[in-house]
Amino acid sequence: MIIVTAREMQDRFTGILNKIGFTEERALASAAIFTSNSVDGIYTHGVNRFPRFVQYVKDGYIKPDASPSLQNKFGGLEQWNGNLGPGPLNAVNATKTVTNLAQQYGIGCVALSNTNHWMRGGAYGWQAAKAGFVFIGFTNTIANMPAWGATDARLGNNPLVIALPFKNEAIVLDMAMSQYSFGSMELSAMKNELLPVHGGFNKKGALTNDPSAILESRRPIPVGYWKGAGLSLLLDLLATIISGGLATHEISKKEVEYGLSQLFIAIDISKLEKTSTITNTIEKILNDYHQSLPIDDSKKIVYPSEGVIKTRKDNLTNGMQVIKKVWEEILLL
Amino acid sequence: MIIVTAREMQDRFTGILNKIGFTEERALASAAIFTSNSVDGIYTHGVNRFPRFVQYVKDGYIKPDASPSLQNKFGGLEQWNGNLGPGPLNAVNATKTVTNLAQQYGIGCVALSNTNHWMRGGAYGWQAAKAGFVFIGFTNTIANMPAWGATDARLGNNPLVIALPFKNEAIVLDMAMSQYSFGSMELSAMKNELLPVHGGFNKKGALTNDPSAILESRRPIPVGYWKGAGLSLLLDLLATIISGGLATHEISKKEVEYGLSQLFIAIDISKLEKTSTITNTIEKILNDYHQSLPIDDSKKIVYPSEGVIKTRKDNLTNGMQVIKKVWEEILLL
Repeated sequence: MIIVTAREMQDRFTGILNKIGFTEERALASAAIFTSNSVDGIYTHGVNRFPRFVQYVKDGYIKPDASPSLQNKFGGLEQWNGNLGPGPLNAVNATKTVTNLAQQYGIGCVALSNTNHWMRGGAYGWQAAKAGFVFIGFTNTIANMPAWGATDARLGNNPLVIALPFKNEAIVLDMAMSQYSFGSMELSAMKNELLPVHGGFNKKGALTNDPSAILESRRPIPVGYWKGAGLSLLLDLLATIISGGLATHEISKKEVEYGLSQLFIAIDISKLEKTSTITNTIEKILNDYHQSLPIDDSKKIVYPSEGVIKTRKDNLTNGMQVIKKVWEEILLL
Repeated sequence: MIIVTAREMQDRFTGILNKIGFTEERALASAAIFTSNSVDGIYTHGVNRFPRFVQYVKDGYIKPDASPSLQNKFGGLEQWNGNLGPGPLNAVNATKTVTNLAQQYGIGCVALSNTNHWMRGGAYGWQAAKAGFVFIGFTNTIANMPAWGATDARLGNNPLVIALPFKNEAIVLDMAMSQYSFGSMELSAMKNELLPVHGGFNKKGALTNDPSAILESRRPIPVGYWKGAGLSLLLDLLATIISGGLATHEISKKEVEYGLSQLFIAIDISKLEKTSTITNTIEKILNDYHQSLPIDDSKKIVYPSEGVIKTRKDNLTNGMQVIKKVWEEILLL
């Protein structure tokens, strides 16, 4: 591990993106997303993923200068074409657009076709919620998970993000439809650790918490088995039909994952309730939740994203622990 | 088991509701929901649940003559008070209202406070989707599931419904956040059957697929463990803050489950795309999905709600198999 500060990371990423065709403004904005994902502790979709993002730009899958364009609009519902621009920039733009729609219509929806991997979906939940909006968003992906009862991957893990504002910060749920990501299973396998719960099937078709066996079979399980499989299918259907973009089965025929479909919904609750009332209601819900009796007294019961603010503060103060090999690879870009 | 026809059921339910204070129109409409839930094969939230619904009316928890009233409105976003009226009638009304909003604004949202159990959430998915709309809806419930890592129930199983129109019918996902309902675990326990996958913890704190052990511990697991627990919490937060209604922790302090908060979102995709284009896109997605290689060749890979239309047809043609004890109890109401 090597310590990298946020400023160092931001500068380095900006410089690299500049070199591969990003304007100064777009390089800064893209670097900021990769950096803040890392600062928030989501290294898998921050620094660790940055080299692949750069490679996809170099390979022409991601167009550094492409911006989304409005295709179709009715009231608070808009269809945008991402024009294969950088996924994070397209998603930031869609989030900004959908919150503007919510301000105007109470609720808004932006469906985005032809975009690219948005990295950490939670980033757009934080963006919308910190601006005062409730947010629901999801993306389709390449097929990486079998339907329930099947052996071959035809479903994406289609992450779903739900967020709401809380005390100038946010509560953000960011969940993929697979119980574990391939990234986290690879990490556990490297460390020779078992998964805490079943993560998929082994080659013999038995449920297992051995990450190596699941990596070998390529059969991760959906969250809640048939339920998460169903939810994954429905999210793909919605993102695809509303955006008019590509479905998981079409994306999966490409050489790499690009040209995704995404949906962004925002609700402007300030039109209905005072912020103080909302904050008070949330505090009471969290207060009850935190009174849960833990199985293990040393483990606090936390809500989704509860630890992020502390991680963010620590990482901004002390710098981040980055895998040495990853950072060295980045220094060569 | 005893055979009951849909017409017989509808007549019987209407008569009973008439007797306990429903106007003819509202008795017919409520009876139609309980009957069609049963016709669709969802007996747990149709005929089997009807006696408890009647009891709650008699006990004064459900007000037979109460209708929802508009509290607050901004563009496509509306807040309604259910005034403790019958949950299914309130939900039908909210669904009709939200699809009207979607027609006007492209996307609409109705948040409903102070309502009652909507029975089968999928019913409103079918309603909206058959009318041509994409639908997302959810409800909170009484606490019936521990947070992940906890032993005491502080989360609801908060069913989530997602639906879309397909060939004058619909594709409807209707999933509670617990892996199994208490109802289905009781059924398995009665039949001395094990659950196909882990459904919760036993009293010793080990994951188990023995339904009796879970009924004893009262520790069902959320779908996807920590993920479904997080999703359940977020759905409760959203339903509560947007409707201004009660949260799971407040409902759980009451003597029975009433006064719920619900959210209904509808999108009018006909404003963006031709129906023929949408149908074609869906067909291609389902076609790929159906090509999944099954683990067991005798088991077809089906999408959520795929079997409903056949069940509906069978039940309308041949009548329904109703548990004799349940029907006898209904005949005495």
